[in-house]
Formats: sequence, C-alpha cells, structure tokens
Amino acid sequence: MSAPLPPGSTVGILGGGQLARMLALAAGRLGIDCHVYAPEADSPAFAVSAARTVAGYDDFAALEAFAREVDVVTYEFENVPGDTAGFLDSRVPVAPGVAALKTAQDRIAEKSFIAGLGIPVAPFAEVCDLASLEAAIARIGRPAVLKTRRFGYDGKGQTKIHDGTDPGTAFAEIGRQPAILEGFVQFEKEISVIAARSWSGEVQVYDVPENHHENHILKTSTVPARISPAVARAAMDFGSRIIAALDYVGVIGIEMFVAGDDVIVNEIAPRVHNSGHWTMDACAVSQFEQHIRAVCGWPLGSPERYADVVMTNLLGDEAGRWRELAAEPRVHLHLYGKREARPGRKMGHFNRVTPRQPQDSMLTRRPR
Amino acid sequence: MSAPLPPGSTVGILGGGQLARMLALAAGRLGIDCHVYAPEADSPAFAVSAARTVAGYDDFAALEAFAREVDVVTYEFENVPGDTAGFLDSRVPVAPGVAALKTAQDRIAEKSFIAGLGIPVAPFAEVCDLASLEAAIARIGRPAVLKTRRFGYDGKGQTKIHDGTDPGTAFAEIGRQPAILEGFVQFEKEISVIAARSWSGEVQVYDVPENHHENHILKTSTVPARISPAVARAAMDFGSRIIAALDYVGVIGIEMFVAGDDVIVNEIAPRVHNSGHWTMDACAVSQFEQHIRAVCGWPLGSPERYADVVMTNLLGDEAGRWRELAAEPRVHLHLYGKREARPGRKMGHFNRVTPRQPQDSMLTRRPR
Repeated sequence: MSAPLPPGSTVGILGGGQLARMLALAAGRLGIDCHVYAPEADSPAFAVSAARTVAGYDDFAALEAFAREVDVVTYEFENVPGDTAGFLDSRVPVAPGVAALKTAQDRIAEKSFIAGLGIPVAPFAEVCDLASLEAAIARIGRPAVLKTRRFGYDGKGQTKIHDGTDPGTAFAEIGRQPAILEGFVQFEKEISVIAARSWSGEVQVYDVPENHHENHILKTSTVPARISPAVARAAMDFGSRIIAALDYVGVIGIEMFVAGDDVIVNEIAPRVHNSGHWTMDACAVSQFEQHIRAVCGWPLGSPERYADVVMTNLLGDEAGRWRELAAEPRVHLHLYGKREARPGRKMGHFNRVTPRQPQDSMLTRRPR
Repeated sequence: MSAPLPPGSTVGILGGGQLARMLALAAGRLGIDCHVYAPEADSPAFAVSAARTVAGYDDFAALEAFAREVDVVTYEFENVPGDTAGFLDSRVPVAPGVAALKTAQDRIAEKSFIAGLGIPVAPFAEVCDLASLEAAIARIGRPAVLKTRRFGYDGKGQTKIHDGTDPGTAFAEIGRQPAILEGFVQFEKEISVIAARSWSGEVQVYDVPENHHENHILKTSTVPARISPAVARAAMDFGSRIIAALDYVGVIGIEMFVAGDDVIVNEIAPRVHNSGHWTMDACAVSQFEQHIRAVCGWPLGSPERYADVVMTNLLGDEAGRWRELAAEPRVHLHLYGKREARPGRKMGHFNRVTPRQPQDSMLTRRPR
C-alpha cells in the first residue's frame, strides 16, 4: 500500500461477529466506513457498520461486488477459505495476507513455521492415519493432545491421549481428519502476545496478559501478568519475530505457555484476539483501532498502557449481569448485541480497570 | 421509565450529525441499537447506526413509523420543533423531555429560569421591537449583545451593541426577530459543566473544563481548568441545581463565565456538548455513554477522571492534520466521517491526554 487510506475510505471485513463489530466501532471513531460480509443475517457487526453483504464465502458474484466497494479487505476469523481470500486478493489488498492465513489455518504449517524460527513449540508430529498416530505417540509420549490440522477452536476438534486412551478411539473422536499430535506442556501460566505490524514494517507490541481458560474458552485476561521481566521480554520478542517473519499486516494474537523460565508458543490467531480486549480501556490505542490503522496504512498507535486491568468474558447467561456491572465504578462494559444467549457463547466482556502512574512499559519497536 | 431498557433495545436519535454519531458509537459498545432520524441523506451518524430514516422533522407519517421502531427517543440538537417533540412524546418516551427543550430553545425562558433558581446570569431584557431595544439599552448599558430569542448558535443570530452602534441597524442585522439584550460580561475564562441525570434522579457531574473559542466556535477544552476549588464547586453546584430543577434526563452542557470569584451562567444546551468531548479519553464513562445510560434508565457511570486532557477541534481543512496526529503518542483522534470540509465545519477533534495519579476529583452526587 503506497499511501494511507484516508478517512472516508471503506474497510471490508469478512465475518460479522463481535470482533468485526468492535473493529467497526473503532473504525467509526476514525471516520472510516466498514462493509461487513457474512452469511448470517443477524451478524452482530451489521448494526454498527456502514454497509453489509449477506452471502456465503463461496458466492463469487457477491465477493466481486464486495471487492469493488471496499479499499482494503480484512477478516475477523482465521478460517477464511483459501479460494475466497485468493479471489479477493487479486482484486483488492487483503490484510493480513493470504500467506499468514495459510500458515495459521494448518497446525502443522503453523508449528513448523514457528519452530523454523528457532522459537520453542511443543513437540509435534503429523498424523494422517492410525499407523502414523501410533508412531507419533511412541515418539512424543503420553499425555498428548490430538487435534485436527484445520478448523478447530475453543477446544473443538481435539482430544486428549492419556495412558489408557485407545489410539483408534481417539482418532475416531476427531473424525479421522488429518491431524497433529502435540506433546502436553506442563505449564504454570498461559499468556499471549498481541502485536501489530504495519505495511511499512513498523511493529508495536502490547504488554503481556495472563490468561485463564475454563472449558477451553478464555475466561479472564489480567495485565500486568505475574511473570518475570525476562519471561515478558522473551514472549514479546517471539511475537515480534513471528509477526515480521510472516510479513504480516494487522494485529496478531499469539498464545503461549510459561513453564518456569521458558516460554513455549502454542497458537497463532491471524486476527484481533479475545486476550487483547483489555486494551480497549487500558491503552492509548485499542487492538481494534490498531488493526484498522495497520490495514489502512496509517502509523501505528502507541501500545502504552495507562492502567492495570482484568478482562472478564461474559458467556451465555452471564450477560444478564449487565445491570449490576453497569453500576460498578471502573467497570467498562462491552456487550455484543447478540440476541440469543446460548451456553458458552461470547455475549460480551467487561474490563475492570485500576489507573496507574505512567511508567515505561515493555515496549518493543522493531523496524522491518 | 419503570425498568432499564436492556441491551438489544433501540434508541431513536433526532439529528444525524457528529453528536448523534458519537452517541451511536457509545450505544453500540453497550449492545444498544440506534435508529437515526434526519433530513440529510449524508448524515454522519448513519454509517455507524443500525437503522435510519431520512425525512423532515415535520413528516408526521415518518415520525409515526419511527416512534413504533424505537424504545426511547433522544436528540442531538436543541432546535427540535415543538410539534415534533410533542408528537413523539405522546407515543414513546422522549429524553431529555419536552420541558427542557422549551426552556433551552428560548433565551428569555432560559435566562428567566436560571435567574429564578437564584443563579447568576448576565443582566437581560426582552426585546420585541426597536422601542423595547432602546429601553433595554438604556437599562442594561453598553456594551451589550443582541441575540435572537431562538435558533442562534456558534455566533449566528447575534450582534454586538457598542458605543457607536445604531439600535435600528443592530435590530435589522438580526432580522428584527424576537430578541434578548444581554449585558456584556467581562469574564476572565469560559468554563462549562457537563452533567447527567437519570430517570431516578441520580446526578453525576464531570470535572469542569476551561474553554477557548475562536470566532464563536469552540477551539479547545482543557481539564483541569485553572480555576479555584471554590469556583469549580460553584459551577458544579449550579449545574446540579439546574439539571434537577429541569427534571432532566440525559446529559446537559451548561456554559458559564468566570469573573474573579464569580460564576455566571451563560447558556444551556440540552444535549451532549462539544466541551465534553474530552471525557471520551480521560474518564471511565464518556458523556456519550453517560447520555445513553441515562435515557435508557441504566445506572449512571462514574465521572471519575483518569487523566489531564486538552481537546482540540478540527475545523474545515484542519481535518487534513489526521496523518500527523495519528502518529503522535497520547493523541486520541476522532473524525466524524464528513465528506466536505467547509470552512469552520466541525470535522473531528483530538484529545491530548496526560495520565495522572488517581485522586478524588470534585464529584458531586445529588439524589433527587
């Protein structure tokens, strides 16, 4: 992208969930319009966007029209079909790029890429049938986790391999899909790195949140994390190296484990991330605004942090807590406009904020 | 309103300018939809709202349909025609109410009301013809300001009465409209009070900004204002008394003069106000979110201030500074999505923020 897209430009977003909704709200503050493309007529992002297309990701006529109406395309979920991304990419800039999508969509490609940078990952092996699964178990040992290579998230498409697990049963449980076996990491904490990179190669990395999951779904993110400065620096360094090596444009979310002094990278999400929602009320520039800036070729914002914060997701019926939360000082409430509170569904979140004296946070700035 | 409007409710907004746009963005964060009603097809608020009606304020068929689709109506400009407000008010709750509109729309009613509370205002007199203007000048003296009773803003519909001014010429300059003559206040500073009141009578008042105007248009608001604690308390007290006496629901902006130790109330705006934009990046809850909370029957948010801040308007071509401003740390940029940068037109604003150690700010909480 040779010049920044000025206010009044249109960002196309594939996917219409809460991440797209929050991207559209951030873009709206900068005078940038969003056009949301999604198959679901009740997509939460529609209500706060300038335009919408309700169509399937394989509807190439609709994609053609969409491409004509936007200045850049981005997405809020990683499983954008390759054909869709490729089709758009030949018509309008797509950020993050198709290469980042390909790497993130396939767990073998993802792990191989990260390991290839000399960054620690869990031991892993490719699994394509029962024989390769048994060989992988023999090499990696138990316990281990068997995951489909593609399309899993929030605990779906995976199963544990314990001492007593029958490999055949486990393989059937994941539908005998092409898979990966990952050695189980004995971690003390889960953290993540939310980083951004611009078209010009500028990188900004937020402070590191400590994340707690329940039933594979993120429950809280806490900043600052209770980790040593060395661990924080290592994590942020890994994030910077990964985002640059992917030639990435936009915000990326990278989940990691902490085991003692070691940081092990778990998963890359080529999009804004739930563990970055805390930035909306504790930082100068939220991850959502940062992503819009990045894909539109604007200078990145400072990731400076003004406050300590705990983000808590509101899942399913928990959204009913809105009235009590609205009455609490220093609680910043965010609700996604979803009508149906299905169990485990992400309905909103809140950030409980404690202002702090401004200090040097661990900012990493890496020119390309 | 007996119960809070839950997330998923719809707030109707009369007027589609930047204030409506920022209200819609704040509502969007709470999962509340906005339906914007305005005559201009290119209204800035449309791009971030769930629904829109493009129609005149005297289109009662359109108003009827609009009333059916919203749960509460509010407005972003004070000159909502009385017939429009009354028509809606018999169909759906309108907040702030019709009484507040009537008081704010007529400068004589406004000044009389404020003076009636024992709150200082500039000397004033009603003017309906040349004779009453001459009598008013004789009583109040020169210099003075002659303003139309209704429809003036940002310096329009007013003219100064100096020593050499011919009353007839001045009266003609304002179109011989029903008018008010106001004694000129020798002020050192202009300040304002942004306050909110809920349906239940809860009042919250923000810290007092110091405002600088150029050519009658707000240029900057600075918080904290350089005023004594006594002046700040007086101003916030006046704000609380006015908002309660109006039985007001929503956010109000009240402009005041500071002359020595005295605070003189100038003008009431029954809406969110330009001199409150600083709250978007220095407070727990912005004036926009506060207004949405109030009209929807939610608990008010805390007006606690996290930072010192200077808000600067971007008028006309100044919006072209977006690229340089986007590159500055601690600058929070807001652009309104207006396509045409006419001279003096409010195109956006930015808040330059300095985080502070949390302290007790001068919070005034007044139950009804």
